[in-house]
Amino acid sequence: MIVAMQENATEEQIDVVIDAMVDVGVNVHRTTGATQTILAGVGPTAGVDLNKFEVFPGVLYVHRITAPYKLAGRAFRPEGTVIEFSNGVTVGGNQVQVMAGPCSIENREGLVETARRVKAAGGSFLRGGAFKPRSSPYAFQGLGIPGLQLMHEVAEAHGLLTVSEVMEISQIEPMLPYVDLFQVGARNMQNFNLLRELGQVRKPVLLKRGIAATIEELLLSSEYIMSGGNYEVILCERGIRTYETSTRNTMDISAIPVLKKLSHLPVVADPSHGTGRRDMVAPMAKASVAAGADAILVEVHPNADKAASDAAQTLYLEQFERLMVDLRVIATAVGRTL
Amino acid sequence: MIVAMQENATEEQIDVVIDAMVDVGVNVHRTTGATQTILAGVGPTAGVDLNKFEVFPGVLYVHRITAPYKLAGRAFRPEGTVIEFSNGVTVGGNQVQVMAGPCSIENREGLVETARRVKAAGGSFLRGGAFKPRSSPYAFQGLGIPGLQLMHEVAEAHGLLTVSEVMEISQIEPMLPYVDLFQVGARNMQNFNLLRELGQVRKPVLLKRGIAATIEELLLSSEYIMSGGNYEVILCERGIRTYETSTRNTMDISAIPVLKKLSHLPVVADPSHGTGRRDMVAPMAKASVAAGADAILVEVHPNADKAASDAAQTLYLEQFERLMVDLRVIATAVGRTL
Amino acid sequence: MIVAMQENATEEQIDVVIDAMVDVGVNVHRTTGATQTILAGVGPTAGVDLNKFEVFPGVLYVHRITAPYKLAGRAFRPEGTVIEFSNGVTVGGNQVQVMAGPCSIENREGLVETARRVKAAGGSFLRGGAFKPRSSPYAFQGLGIPGLQLMHEVAEAHGLLTVSEVMEISQIEPMLPYVDLFQVGARNMQNFNLLRELGQVRKPVLLKRGIAATIEELLLSSEYIMSGGNYEVILCERGIRTYETSTRNTMDISAIPVLKKLSHLPVVADPSHGTGRRDMVAPMAKASVAAGADAILVEVHPNADKAASDAAQTLYLEQFERLMVDLRVIATAVGRTL
Amino acid sequence: MIVAMQENATEEQIDVVIDAMVDVGVNVHRTTGATQTILAGVGPTAGVDLNKFEVFPGVLYVHRITAPYKLAGRAFRPEGTVIEFSNGVTVGGNQVQVMAGPCSIENREGLVETARRVKAAGGSFLRGGAFKPRSSPYAFQGLGIPGLQLMHEVAEAHGLLTVSEVMEISQIEPMLPYVDLFQVGARNMQNFNLLRELGQVRKPVLLKRGIAATIEELLLSSEYIMSGGNYEVILCERGIRTYETSTRNTMDISAIPVLKKLSHLPVVADPSHGTGRRDMVAPMAKASVAAGADAILVEVHPNADKAASDAAQTLYLEQFERLMVDLRVIATAVGRTL
Repeated sequence: MIVAMQENATEEQIDVVIDAMVDVGVNVHRTTGATQTILAGVGPTAGVDLNKFEVFPGVLYVHRITAPYKLAGRAFRPEGTVIEFSNGVTVGGNQVQVMAGPCSIENREGLVETARRVKAAGGSFLRGGAFKPRSSPYAFQGLGIPGLQLMHEVAEAHGLLTVSEVMEISQIEPMLPYVDLFQVGARNMQNFNLLRELGQVRKPVLLKRGIAATIEELLLSSEYIMSGGNYEVILCERGIRTYETSTRNTMDISAIPVLKKLSHLPVVADPSHGTGRRDMVAPMAKASVAAGADAILVEVHPNADKAASDAAQTLYLEQFERLMVDLRVIATAVGRTL
Repeated sequence: MIVAMQENATEEQIDVVIDAMVDVGVNVHRTTGATQTILAGVGPTAGVDLNKFEVFPGVLYVHRITAPYKLAGRAFRPEGTVIEFSNGVTVGGNQVQVMAGPCSIENREGLVETARRVKAAGGSFLRGGAFKPRSSPYAFQGLGIPGLQLMHEVAEAHGLLTVSEVMEISQIEPMLPYVDLFQVGARNMQNFNLLRELGQVRKPVLLKRGIAATIEELLLSSEYIMSGGNYEVILCERGIRTYETSTRNTMDISAIPVLKKLSHLPVVADPSHGTGRRDMVAPMAKASVAAGADAILVEVHPNADKAASDAAQTLYLEQFERLMVDLRVIATAVGRTL
Repeated sequence: MIVAMQENATEEQIDVVIDAMVDVGVNVHRTTGATQTILAGVGPTAGVDLNKFEVFPGVLYVHRITAPYKLAGRAFRPEGTVIEFSNGVTVGGNQVQVMAGPCSIENREGLVETARRVKAAGGSFLRGGAFKPRSSPYAFQGLGIPGLQLMHEVAEAHGLLTVSEVMEISQIEPMLPYVDLFQVGARNMQNFNLLRELGQVRKPVLLKRGIAATIEELLLSSEYIMSGGNYEVILCERGIRTYETSTRNTMDISAIPVLKKLSHLPVVADPSHGTGRRDMVAPMAKASVAAGADAILVEVHPNADKAASDAAQTLYLEQFERLMVDLRVIATAVGRTL
Repeated sequence: MIVAMQENATEEQIDVVIDAMVDVGVNVHRTTGATQTILAGVGPTAGVDLNKFEVFPGVLYVHRITAPYKLAGRAFRPEGTVIEFSNGVTVGGNQVQVMAGPCSIENREGLVETARRVKAAGGSFLRGGAFKPRSSPYAFQGLGIPGLQLMHEVAEAHGLLTVSEVMEISQIEPMLPYVDLFQVGARNMQNFNLLRELGQVRKPVLLKRGIAATIEELLLSSEYIMSGGNYEVILCERGIRTYETSTRNTMDISAIPVLKKLSHLPVVADPSHGTGRRDMVAPMAKASVAAGADAILVEVHPNADKAASDAAQTLYLEQFERLMVDLRVIATAVGRTL
């Protein structure tokens, strides 16, 4: 850590800061410049709240020098993480994977039709939500575990893997037989109790970026899972909240190459939530693959207009099939397969 | 709801939209202007996902006309809600209340000293966190229920009420004997399962605005609690995330009068989290009262520098006492007591 | 325009609003629902400040129904605008164009080397700034008109067109002989006097989105230029300011397909300013072309580390050449040439 | 400046960075930790673009240690700047000043009525815009210099000072006889040519914060003016752009105490632009004074609904008079006069 003192800081103020630095367990190196004193603290600061140094009298700035995450950092595994699933499908390798399905699991018929066409088009995961606590207390709330059983059965019959959102610790256990990939939603990105429990699970976790989360916070949340021993985390960019309102969120495509640089974990892009608009999903899916995404997560429904949730951002199956053709060309253009 | 068609929308496109509007249960009034057709849907749309209309071909804009909340709206109780606690203290009335205490409950000695001086200075609630899942997996995680027992005992001995954060449904029951006011943190503002359970409780809830939540979303979350029958909700402004970095969050003081206008619920301001800096707490607390806040929530600690969490934003007890003197003058200046 | 009254609005309040609507020149259609009155105003509202209706007593919401721009709207020229330059190069057609060069024009030698390699790699425009008022009063301020003369001469010798930023009305005239495309910087996107003057010029204008500008505001600014008679406007996405700090700005790639949908104007992407980091320029340039950009604007310099300005985001020439190879493949993948 | 290298940075990479640091003129102190090397550069870096160091291979973070401004910093004049105007009125002293008037100067009659009542209520400045380039090309564009002559005459007759916005360098000279305080609008906060010219003027400048400007950028812009020799700068908070839409901008009240801490310059708050809503102006004006503002800038108009611009945020004269009574009480409560 680095503490830069104000130009007019007194010796007494500097001493108070040095004592507090020693207190948190770092060795202090002092550099006295012509106008300013700089204190460098060397030692482990991962668990230290550095903000408190900012409000000491005489302090100008405090900076953490090391990244506050370790296991998630690129240096931990420079060659990159490749997650292999039971059927041999990999995320993080050369092949770009596509995960598709309805926002909510609704009924067998629609799900079978979806699974059949997702598989035929080249998708490898069937997605679908079973728990749907909605922002309006009056909307459809999901089928629960029976829905996941149904999805698991349909996916298996079509040679697909399953991904579904877990919202509470109590859901982990009952979901375990039916999902191949646990999804943590944007609202739970900093639900640290849930993350810690998922660190104990031996199934991969897809961790969505919160709508107001920084890239550093996303990596710190992945660290939470990894510190429990579960190193199979996939990071997901799904749009952040900005002042722009023509899309529901602003999809931060640059987060994809930034995450690939800072971390060894695979990165998936979710253009459905990223834009909130069906007509923007295809261009943003293509942009994501061009920018280096390892997988695409997208909402499709045989009767998209009438989907029980997220209808506006859900692709028709025909649109999805066309998109898959286009994505394959883009993947090839960036030296990958799909 | 209003759907404005694009200038060049075809009759066929208009018909598709009208059918879909009828489908969600509204009566459609069509206005055909010289350049543009406008469709007004009259009827209940609270549970309807209007976004899906935006991606119909030929649609320019869709607007929800009614506010998506009802119970939380000012019209529901124009005179305003006043919440009365067991000892007669009220929030939402003429008296401005102050809720103060450490971020985390740490030990009896410090808590007693805090309670004594908070009470002496005119505070009415003792605050303190018992569950502290932290963004770094390596930091202090809280004392749990025993901590709440301690706080309850200390508060009672000093004639104070207690407020503490509930993070999971499973914590509600064990917390019930020890807290007078359940606090829902910013990260849980859209944890709808938790909100629904709190709707069943017969104790007031302090609901914090999420760091990326709009005022409308905050009101919709309060609606979730109220729709369960618990009408005693206090809304809390505690800073939103913006591009500005000199404060940890940007405290949206204007949210206070906006909430007072849109809703009948009391509004509390949290300048500790709102700014993240001890030296900004006092001016922002004063600004909040001047802008119409019904209560102030603030972090204090006898040894603020060494607080186990949030040290940077925690006031020393002397600072708190000075602030209380100043706040009383401001409260008087806006026609209230403290 | 639509005015939705609050549920408890009085007849008197409604009458005041109706009178004010008639006052601004619209015909009012009133719909009285069970709970709420809605007033639809039909007629031209382009020059009307609708905000003032929001603060009338009894008003809930006001919405503008027509887009506030006309000439820039897709409906005005559904087939899209293709701008043809003197040498036959087109922007907005099937071919993706690349505009490259240093942030600031510095010296002949570097510029010749840059032009030679930009041209050889397939670029069509040489970019370079002549006026560089910088955020620090102590930094390099640009070569002025002599710099533009130099750039024009070098560009012509290599078969390239020129693009450079105009910052003040007084610069238009002297720049005219030397630039093929006037660039308006992000800070001047709402310099309406400058925009109006550029509406009188008969050379195309590249209009950059302000760092806090909405897509609608960008289109309204383009309308300003077009309303003067200059229909040759190219819109530029170059990153917006958000809370994320790992890139200098957050490049809003989704703005590209949104702009292509709402407007007929060509769209160019600037990944140099969009990210502020050399190592992110290539993935974001590829993403932009995949998302439908008509052109790419990028900073290159033979000695990028020592560029007089924007060094961090400037590509080395070798990086640029590699990027051009990759972009050509992506362009082909989306059915275009480069 | 501090450069933190990545954990796995090579000696070669470190040498490249050291050379580049020496190149920009700083002395380099190297600290080699167990896991990481830190390079401290001591020397003047005000004119140096530090971003470029961030993209050197092997670099983790770069931090500027000194504030990039000097003249604007609190240390430059710890006792604070008090600006005295010709009639003895001061800004930055103990008395809080109020600047009020219409958004646009429209006609003598309205202006006289406004001036009379602003003065009677205790205001000290008459504000009014003469140049009104508007976001819609179809709206009222202002009266120009004759409007300023009118305002000057009316203000003088009532014992008021004048403040008006300057938008271009060419306007400075003709405005000089008529304004006591030059206002630089939010859109021009980074119009460095204009700022530099105002640095040559011997009249105070009110500098508005841009809607996407950080506090540091605002201070750097003030530095631009001051570096020309004009030290009489007043900083203005007038709302920033965030995702919240219930107010036009989000007024960053915390900027007031932050600016007072970082700088010696007086701070004025503009709740009219800060909220964009007449009904929010009063609470936010009160909050601003409570938070430490030295002055309030507010829009008033005898016929606010029909003001030629900014009608929604303009107070009726009666509202203004009531506000002045309330503000005086708040000013007293924070130990000041008004």
